[in-house]
Amino acid sequence: MASPVRKLADLIAGYSVEVRKSDDVVIRATMAAMPLLVELYRAIVERGGYPIPMLTDELLIETFYRYADDEVLKHVSPIEKFIQEKANVMIRILSDTHTKFMSSIDPEKVKIANAARIELTKIFLERSAKKELRWTVAPYPTKALAQEAGMSFFEYEEFVYRACAVHLDDPISFWKKKGEEQKKIIELLSKVSELRFVAEDTDLTVRVDGRVWVNDDGHENMPGGEVFTAPIEDSVEGRIRFTYPAIWRGVEVEDVMLVFRKGEVVEARARRGEEFLRRILETDEGAKRVGELAFGLNYYIDKFTKNILFDEKIGGTIHMALGAAYPETGGKNVSAIHWDMIKDMKRGKVYADGDLIYENGKFVVEL
Amino acid sequence: MASPVRKLADLIAGYSVEVRKSDDVVIRATMAAMPLLVELYRAIVERGGYPIPMLTDELLIETFYRYADDEVLKHVSPIEKFIQEKANVMIRILSDTHTKFMSSIDPEKVKIANAARIELTKIFLERSAKKELRWTVAPYPTKALAQEAGMSFFEYEEFVYRACAVHLDDPISFWKKKGEEQKKIIELLSKVSELRFVAEDTDLTVRVDGRVWVNDDGHENMPGGEVFTAPIEDSVEGRIRFTYPAIWRGVEVEDVMLVFRKGEVVEARARRGEEFLRRILETDEGAKRVGELAFGLNYYIDKFTKNILFDEKIGGTIHMALGAAYPETGGKNVSAIHWDMIKDMKRGKVYADGDLIYENGKFVVEL
Repeated sequence: MASPVRKLADLIAGYSVEVRKSDDVVIRATMAAMPLLVELYRAIVERGGYPIPMLTDELLIETFYRYADDEVLKHVSPIEKFIQEKANVMIRILSDTHTKFMSSIDPEKVKIANAARIELTKIFLERSAKKELRWTVAPYPTKALAQEAGMSFFEYEEFVYRACAVHLDDPISFWKKKGEEQKKIIELLSKVSELRFVAEDTDLTVRVDGRVWVNDDGHENMPGGEVFTAPIEDSVEGRIRFTYPAIWRGVEVEDVMLVFRKGEVVEARARRGEEFLRRILETDEGAKRVGELAFGLNYYIDKFTKNILFDEKIGGTIHMALGAAYPETGGKNVSAIHWDMIKDMKRGKVYADGDLIYENGKFVVEL
Repeated sequence: MASPVRKLADLIAGYSVEVRKSDDVVIRATMAAMPLLVELYRAIVERGGYPIPMLTDELLIETFYRYADDEVLKHVSPIEKFIQEKANVMIRILSDTHTKFMSSIDPEKVKIANAARIELTKIFLERSAKKELRWTVAPYPTKALAQEAGMSFFEYEEFVYRACAVHLDDPISFWKKKGEEQKKIIELLSKVSELRFVAEDTDLTVRVDGRVWVNDDGHENMPGGEVFTAPIEDSVEGRIRFTYPAIWRGVEVEDVMLVFRKGEVVEARARRGEEFLRRILETDEGAKRVGELAFGLNYYIDKFTKNILFDEKIGGTIHMALGAAYPETGGKNVSAIHWDMIKDMKRGKVYADGDLIYENGKFVVEL
């Protein structure tokens, strides 16, 4: 039987980004992902694609920021731009060898570099929307990621493979079936005007009529396993207490409680990091409003690992992001931030226009 | 005092390719070179350049060839072509993690891929000739390269750093001085019509009048330390017995002895690999003629390590290549091969138009 690594590679190349003949496939990863990179090379080349490795290491990124002056930070290489314009497929392998590598770098430097690269992000989003570019983010277990998750390496490895369902004989069938199930949930939610979330210290109402629900079924994220939209900007009313630490660029805020009036945060509390939370909420006008509302539906993910690729999909949770909305949802909120916060709903209820549709972490209506 | 790795990085960025503001600097290496890559990043960024890492691993290259069909082998990515057209600087770090990685791959596949990439090589050579592109090949000691050389790792590491003169306080001054010395040797050789090489089992005469001698002073090769030209194609007469194994794409031929008449090999013998030697000589018309003649002048290199970047520069040797000439020398020989063969001259003599100019591995005239 094929190893999980081999199955993950075939899942990425054969399902997530569907590599085709003559595709230029850019792969971004660290060398820690080598066993997966070897299998990905095989899986890409077997399908007639041409792999272009853009490998790096956190040491190189830290060195860049440490020594670059403003001029270098602002330099956008024509080579980077051309890659963004021409690649047919982009695969990013989450494979950090060190998760705190930016902790000694002045955030101002990162801001300058990111601002100069907005044109690259724009090209990426436009080509993705036009389906000129297929892309995915997928994981490879590393010691640094296991450490961040507070797990032993082998425990974490097993966690990652289960999350992607590559412990199963036929992961591609699993993801197709998962996609169908989520499609039915979306059919239900698309008919709903108002959602009400009730749980401990939580009673929150949002309107979603006219908004588009998106099916995350393992294409642009592996693992997939969520459906998401953007609530109507001024409709969010009530209070919510989040279960897991809310993490913004490495800073953890614990036990966040938010109160909303007319879509805006009017009260923000936290057991740890409250000052930081309030500062981030002041980033801009949109930072106080909700840009994303989602159900986590991947029941193979049952642990919080401080990595949003997994955490936002924990089965039996919902999450909301303060800040920017994804345009494809119809959401209009604009912000420099997009801060996901996750609430466990295994003891919660969700009502759709007054009817109970979700209880104790699961949808309870016939789909 | 700076470490040898740091000095090597500053030597490459500050001398070999002279990184300037806004340069797009492509770096090709394996991840085994990480300590040098970190220092190179610093050295490039400090000079205002922008590093673009194109890192790989022998496992990925082997995987590519193992699974690629003809169509994939022939695919030249527009991204690869754009890099070749736009990079201002290219640095290749010789840092193999495995030296026999192609041994199970059908040479026919390599031929197909290389043939498709001739246009890339052409762009490279044209831009290099027009000085639009500065480039270098420089080493980083790896276990695999040490193993190939038959040395312990630490012994090899010391060898590499000495070869590049980064064991000295000021390697850049060393290379500038070395370049001046070699310039004087070139001034002498440029006045010479006929060179005669006399040593054990060797008496060979070549004509070089009208040809250009090139100064390898650590720019396009680090280590540098040779002067080379191409002899007049039909002028090579006599016999030569090479000291070190002649290596062609990983195959070693020992104790090669060649006899030339009117520039052409008429007799070829070897203690081991004679059959292979004869087959390669039949590659094409140019394979039987000499495309390069050179003096190795790097006296910090005193061991044969089976790597041509070092071996051809061993102080007190000469080398000749069967096959293609470098156009900048004025040489006209064309061939699919360029096979360097090295002769120790520490017990040899060289006469220039009848005068003794070189004895026991050194030039003996006032320069």
